[in-house]
Amino acid sequence: MTDYDSQNVFAKILRSELPCEKVYEDEATLAFMDIMPRADGHVLVIPKTPARNILDIKPEDLSRLMVSVQKVARAVKVGMDADGLTIQQFNESAGGQVVFHIHIHVLPRWEGVPLRPHTGQMEKPEALKAHADKIRAALAG
Amino acid sequence: MTDYDSQNVFAKILRSELPCEKVYEDEATLAFMDIMPRADGHVLVIPKTPARNILDIKPEDLSRLMVSVQKVARAVKVGMDADGLTIQQFNESAGGQVVFHIHIHVLPRWEGVPLRPHTGQMEKPEALKAHADKIRAALAG
Repeated sequence: MTDYDSQNVFAKILRSELPCEKVYEDEATLAFMDIMPRADGHVLVIPKTPARNILDIKPEDLSRLMVSVQKVARAVKVGMDADGLTIQQFNESAGGQVVFHIHIHVLPRWEGVPLRPHTGQMEKPEALKAHADKIRAALAG
Repeated sequence: MTDYDSQNVFAKILRSELPCEKVYEDEATLAFMDIMPRADGHVLVIPKTPARNILDIKPEDLSRLMVSVQKVARAVKVGMDADGLTIQQFNESAGGQVVFHIHIHVLPRWEGVPLRPHTGQMEKPEALKAHADKIRAALAG
């Protein structure tokens, strides 16, 4: 497998070289708004340790990542008043991966509302912040 | 949230009331072929403990589940000679969930090959077995 590339966008976010709209952070993980959301309230959860994807992450790091995914998923459901959640994780280009630091997509879902297609269009920062505020409130509540 | 329904199909598989094409099993988890695969080699991984989805599973059970998902994912990639993997997990009907025992989809992916749509059509048992044989060989290797 290809080695981990420390110049990927999420590695830069972890080093604070790029900004993010953070919703949750602990010792091992970080969660922030996807800037090209496929649904309002679309959050990404990543480990702080370098790993390309599910093929190379250490099992203990994957376990800690998933505990954060669960916390965030519950808060996304409550904060966004969602009916359900879709969770996705892509590995290698053929699997849909674009950024090569493992990340888990947490997507709130509502009855009858399909996911938006990948358009590559960036969401307005104020919209991301408004959704993040709701999710952060649910995490604090 | 709705309570766990012990009459769901995966609970019946766990009790051996229904068959499955098993690829992996340990104390805490079971992996078997999806009978309506969206890609050749499509595997489902489930915990043995009852949980409806990511909203109610115990964190320690989720952690053990993901360690098995990683093992199975690596074997699916090798066994099916895949270029990548897509991992999906659906929560509640709005999120795409159909069987209400938490399960994680492990889908091998190849460059330029889209996932097949959900047709509801069952795969032939001999085809499932042929793919399972490759994945079991990779797990044993």
